[in-house]
Amino acid sequence: MSPYIAEFVGTAMLVLLGDGAVANVLLARTKGKGADLIVIVMGWAMAVFVAVYITASFSGAHLNPVVTVALALAGKFPWSKVPGYVAAQMLGGMAGALLVWLAYRQHFAKEADPDVKLGVFCTAPAIRSVPHNFLTEMICTFVLILGVLYLASPQVGLGALDALPVGLLVLGIGISLGGPTGYAMSPARDLSPRLVHALLPIPGKRDSDWHYAWIPVLGPLAGGSMAAWIYMHAH
Amino acid sequence: MSPYIAEFVGTAMLVLLGDGAVANVLLARTKGKGADLIVIVMGWAMAVFVAVYITASFSGAHLNPVVTVALALAGKFPWSKVPGYVAAQMLGGMAGALLVWLAYRQHFAKEADPDVKLGVFCTAPAIRSVPHNFLTEMICTFVLILGVLYLASPQVGLGALDALPVGLLVLGIGISLGGPTGYAMSPARDLSPRLVHALLPIPGKRDSDWHYAWIPVLGPLAGGSMAAWIYMHAH
Amino acid sequence: MSPYIAEFVGTAMLVLLGDGAVANVLLARTKGKGADLIVIVMGWAMAVFVAVYITASFSGAHLNPVVTVALALAGKFPWSKVPGYVAAQMLGGMAGALLVWLAYRQHFAKEADPDVKLGVFCTAPAIRSVPHNFLTEMICTFVLILGVLYLASPQVGLGALDALPVGLLVLGIGISLGGPTGYAMSPARDLSPRLVHALLPIPGKRDSDWHYAWIPVLGPLAGGSMAAWIYMHAH
Amino acid sequence: MSPYIAEFVGTAMLVLLGDGAVANVLLARTKGKGADLIVIVMGWAMAVFVAVYITASFSGAHLNPVVTVALALAGKFPWSKVPGYVAAQMLGGMAGALLVWLAYRQHFAKEADPDVKLGVFCTAPAIRSVPHNFLTEMICTFVLILGVLYLASPQVGLGALDALPVGLLVLGIGISLGGPTGYAMSPARDLSPRLVHALLPIPGKRDSDWHYAWIPVLGPLAGGSMAAWIYMHAH
Repeated sequence: MSPYIAEFVGTAMLVLLGDGAVANVLLARTKGKGADLIVIVMGWAMAVFVAVYITASFSGAHLNPVVTVALALAGKFPWSKVPGYVAAQMLGGMAGALLVWLAYRQHFAKEADPDVKLGVFCTAPAIRSVPHNFLTEMICTFVLILGVLYLASPQVGLGALDALPVGLLVLGIGISLGGPTGYAMSPARDLSPRLVHALLPIPGKRDSDWHYAWIPVLGPLAGGSMAAWIYMHAH
Repeated sequence: MSPYIAEFVGTAMLVLLGDGAVANVLLARTKGKGADLIVIVMGWAMAVFVAVYITASFSGAHLNPVVTVALALAGKFPWSKVPGYVAAQMLGGMAGALLVWLAYRQHFAKEADPDVKLGVFCTAPAIRSVPHNFLTEMICTFVLILGVLYLASPQVGLGALDALPVGLLVLGIGISLGGPTGYAMSPARDLSPRLVHALLPIPGKRDSDWHYAWIPVLGPLAGGSMAAWIYMHAH
Repeated sequence: MSPYIAEFVGTAMLVLLGDGAVANVLLARTKGKGADLIVIVMGWAMAVFVAVYITASFSGAHLNPVVTVALALAGKFPWSKVPGYVAAQMLGGMAGALLVWLAYRQHFAKEADPDVKLGVFCTAPAIRSVPHNFLTEMICTFVLILGVLYLASPQVGLGALDALPVGLLVLGIGISLGGPTGYAMSPARDLSPRLVHALLPIPGKRDSDWHYAWIPVLGPLAGGSMAAWIYMHAH
Repeated sequence: MSPYIAEFVGTAMLVLLGDGAVANVLLARTKGKGADLIVIVMGWAMAVFVAVYITASFSGAHLNPVVTVALALAGKFPWSKVPGYVAAQMLGGMAGALLVWLAYRQHFAKEADPDVKLGVFCTAPAIRSVPHNFLTEMICTFVLILGVLYLASPQVGLGALDALPVGLLVLGIGISLGGPTGYAMSPARDLSPRLVHALLPIPGKRDSDWHYAWIPVLGPLAGGSMAAWIYMHAH
């Protein structure tokens, strides 16, 4: 498997399993309707675990543009490969969101609340506020990237043995820092599914909340860059 | 232990622990009545973990006809052994379902809802629709088999060290893709217990929903075959 | 640490953490009052994990008379050491139950229901019936001991690396087979704390349900012996 | 990374992820509001896991003054380094609490209950009583430190491979012994965030409950010292 295919497949699986967990808990008439928060955070953790486990040996399992950029900033990944990795991740995130829609299509049809339908695809803040939401996304991505950099060290990316630690790191971040904004931490997990929401003919859908869309892109990039900067200067 | 005995014992344990989790959460007057979804999905994950862990060194821990067929399609398992493996798995699934009934017999007797009694044995869709239910079973089994093929690689089956990753893969699939149909993904987990439901003298039981029974057989086979096809062509 | 001290300390920790989980979820005015079943089953799983992890290198971490007897029956442990191991386990179970009472003493005082007070110490059936309760305890201990024998193989007892698999095995059994009787599976976990309940000056306590007390002793012994017998004949 | 920086960063991450879990479940209008206890105990477990995993190779991942003192008492860590470690841990705990406040600032503002605001930072007893609360903190820290000493043995501190066992140990303690006092077990987790609560301009806050503040400091020190004493005499 080429690294670009691996990033595409891995990010698709990450978003399929992650957004699928949200669909199961939120959409109408699913078997998981109304389940506890532990199901959603465990769903995202297992999504990360599985995706990293399967793709690590092919691409280093970045699966997130912020990881790729942070590794490049830290001098551990060539900038020349960044555009290809990011493109594969963004397309993979779209493919994963499309599969969630296919698997849960009847439940989208039965769901009355347009906010819930959008919420399966991408994050929204619990309390809307540009500076606070930006800051929270910065903090949680800072923790993610600092963790990833120390886990990956001294390699270029993650290995299969890093899959469980990274999954558990994402479990911890989701539990602890997901409360205000839903811990997007990645454009491939937030912007790509948001685009799919905009493109798909979902009956009764709302707009894709483009006013908020830049925060789960730039907030994570800021937090991830800060983590890369600190990591570099601590070595 | 011969590989056929191992497949029988492992599948029996898988279905005993998996269907047992459903019994504990759904049946009347159990200690787990009404517990959160996390209990059911964790129950199936631990069922897979334990069954794979114990049988891996004897049979490669397929424990599911779709796994056996997919490994054969991918050229990693001899077709000559497929009938024996599948027979052992189907009989094992029946034995496991019988043990669940023995362990929870009083609770079956106290349970008033015939749908719940059937639901302990086999899956039913949240919203009935042949094409959508088939597609969802295809997608979740596709993810399972793709995962298993990459985990098992380059071996013929799973090893004991694959038990935790496979268990966590099933945890992730259950959380994320179990919402519409209950993630059967295996005839030994769905058709075999359904047969036991039909044969056992369970007081107040309904019919065994044979109209639906083919979907959790052919959907998983279609999804698993597609995963095997993609896996082969990516190598 | 001598093996007998290790069995005492390990079983005390097992019962302290296991019964402590029940106390947290059941007793009045605790921080965990009314938490989901996942908390109790995870509590027992972590109790097993921690106790096995710490004592494995000293005694093989039996921590349960049924494990010791089954290993002896299977010819893997000398009968001459059985009485000492069992005595250490039974005393350890009593010490653990005493520590739970010390840690939760105020909550025992505030709890009005005598059944709940007893339920912190030992198991009770969801639906009382000698043959069914006995059978269920047999089945769940059969699964436990078969699992332990294959995990321990070819050694005399468990190693530190078996701690997580055994903990997850107990998690699976608790979720799947704990519904009817509360998965006692061990006299050191059930009879020893029951004795402590009888001896301690707990205000407003009921009798210690001695009519039921033999079932979580003999049921597990029967199930464990059957597992040992099958294990022997499969090798 | 110097060991003192590592202790600072690790303790900050531990308190950020741990107190963050409490914030997510308790504060007004978060996405995790009202989630089950499993989320909080899993949050603290993952906090310990991540913090130990990242810092183990730099400082031995004490991350708690009681661990440092107990290792020194057991003769495994030089007393000369104790003040520096403890200072780094206490400052780290303050930094982590500050980050929780930054990430959840809007939710502190919307929260009406001053007890809940304080509860994000530090522990409070379920039923107030100096001797019982002290005893419970002693017991749970005794279990923690005994576990850590055997896990760390024969090294000076924890390694990266101890991260998961220690995280699961803390999960078990939280489930089983957290009911009466909230398992503080560390001045860096309780006193440091309490100080931050006192210093920060949180609107509508109550006093920082200084009457209780010494119990989660001296209780853990007593329990940890007893564990070190027993550990020494068992070797």
